[in-house]
Amino acid sequence: MTTICVDAMGGDEGPEVVLDGIDAALSADSDLSVLVSGPEDVVTPFAASRERVRALVASEVIGMGEHPADAVRAKRDSSIVRGCQAVRSGDADGFFSAGSTGAIFAAATLHVGRIRGIKRPAIASALPGLSGRDTIFCDMGANADARPEMIVQFAQMGRAFSHILLGVEDASVALLSNGSEDTKGSEAALAAHAALAEACGDAGWFKGNCEGGDILAGRFDVIVTDGFTGNVALKTIEGTAKFILGRVKGAVEQSTRAKLGAGLLKPSLKAVAAELSGDDYGGAMLLGVKAPVLIGHGATSREAVKNGTLACARAVREGLVDKVAQQVS
Amino acid sequence: MTTICVDAMGGDEGPEVVLDGIDAALSADSDLSVLVSGPEDVVTPFAASRERVRALVASEVIGMGEHPADAVRAKRDSSIVRGCQAVRSGDADGFFSAGSTGAIFAAATLHVGRIRGIKRPAIASALPGLSGRDTIFCDMGANADARPEMIVQFAQMGRAFSHILLGVEDASVALLSNGSEDTKGSEAALAAHAALAEACGDAGWFKGNCEGGDILAGRFDVIVTDGFTGNVALKTIEGTAKFILGRVKGAVEQSTRAKLGAGLLKPSLKAVAAELSGDDYGGAMLLGVKAPVLIGHGATSREAVKNGTLACARAVREGLVDKVAQQVS
Repeated sequence: MTTICVDAMGGDEGPEVVLDGIDAALSADSDLSVLVSGPEDVVTPFAASRERVRALVASEVIGMGEHPADAVRAKRDSSIVRGCQAVRSGDADGFFSAGSTGAIFAAATLHVGRIRGIKRPAIASALPGLSGRDTIFCDMGANADARPEMIVQFAQMGRAFSHILLGVEDASVALLSNGSEDTKGSEAALAAHAALAEACGDAGWFKGNCEGGDILAGRFDVIVTDGFTGNVALKTIEGTAKFILGRVKGAVEQSTRAKLGAGLLKPSLKAVAAELSGDDYGGAMLLGVKAPVLIGHGATSREAVKNGTLACARAVREGLVDKVAQQVS
Repeated sequence: MTTICVDAMGGDEGPEVVLDGIDAALSADSDLSVLVSGPEDVVTPFAASRERVRALVASEVIGMGEHPADAVRAKRDSSIVRGCQAVRSGDADGFFSAGSTGAIFAAATLHVGRIRGIKRPAIASALPGLSGRDTIFCDMGANADARPEMIVQFAQMGRAFSHILLGVEDASVALLSNGSEDTKGSEAALAAHAALAEACGDAGWFKGNCEGGDILAGRFDVIVTDGFTGNVALKTIEGTAKFILGRVKGAVEQSTRAKLGAGLLKPSLKAVAAELSGDDYGGAMLLGVKAPVLIGHGATSREAVKNGTLACARAVREGLVDKVAQQVS
């Protein structure tokens, strides 16, 4: 049995969606058990009527708008803090929450703890690529400023994650920059480039700089950047998708022809939106802590909770933490 | 008469497209004259048969792949260097080229010269917004590292450009960051935030941080960032559009239903692509030099050359340079 602690209070859609997702995950994976953290009236009745579910009562909730580190310190009885502590104590093997990214990052760093040698945990996710190849993107926002040696660890952790999640052996890595030439980059990016080249040596996995246009191109297995640039790029992807779909919607309102076209194209447009939503993998993995911690979207769905819980269990079974530790040792 | 120097050798499509675009601009604007720079066999016959065109013979061409500053130093008789010198000497009032952004930036900074008080010129463009409001985005890539006082000037220049290009009085400005809260940002972004708040004082135009998702939302008149982040964001927008349209194309190849839908939606999809291409404004403006210098896309069209030449002439007539100088003084 693999036990994943799931935060019932994560996500903007309310605990019902999370509990539905847990049920779906339990149906899909007979070797899964769930420790569900949240208020007593939510988690106790849910656990009572299910064999493979235990309740972890937590009286507090950390909201999306709260200051992450402050909230984690102040709310020791929150579903996020309790969940991370349960992983630390061995009550669960991994943690899934669609709550505040910053709070999950802070709580996991503090209570699950960093893998020995890891300077800073980072957030990574698989993004779809036009070529058909997925790309692991890291860091997605945890470390606004990242020193060169941190970027090297993001590459190493990203390679381990690419192996576990996508089955890629010897993943290629590119550094996000403002041009593909070696001479391009901010001072920080140039320093990161040099550190990556040195860490790679003759091994060949470091492919140099890439551009923003490569993120969804499927040209590299892993793309690394600092959390500031990573966050801007990800939000820009979301904003661009919203813009394009919004404009199509606007055209539909003005023309019968466009309306008919959009109706016929709807399955395709929905498929693209789903691909970009990241729901397939259930969220973003926090790499560098001593157990798999998966962060779902705030606007999460039953499907995303199911996929996130299952992905977290898979990461436990396939030894993500050991793979990450090997890469950086 | 307003005279714009147009680089016949700019753009991947060859000089014919540029010359076609010049003809279109001349037809549209009877107070426009053009100084066309390029090889003798291209520009001399073209000028000979047209009243409002003069030839500026330049024997060299700077390619898209060349090191910008080196090429500008080495190729003194290139169409870009000659064009910028013609602006400096008063032979033309502004310069339009769809050539290498870096080379145009280097040549204009060196030969057109910076406006007094400007620390570094920057590249700005109007991006469409979902709300219907356009947003000036600056810096789009000229300055990979930008000190806080440079970001403040990008804001001031962006406000002047917003006034000239879009007619916005008292443009609002936001700083691109990894979160909208004041506390979010890399060290550089936090310092830029503080400098912008101080420069704005009680004037109210500085609206704080914004996220990547705001770039195409049409929430702010101006969004400022360093050239590294700006380049990554812009390339990410292009890559996302390419991904979405590529996926739609893929669906079309697999289903008759999707094919029919895409056919009917084609005008709408083309309109979105055109909006995102920036062809409406003909390119990106180099702000902070002593004359309007407009940089077109490499993959430029007749329409883009026409719009770029006309936009450059409009910027001359409406006193862009004086407005920029006033903002920073």
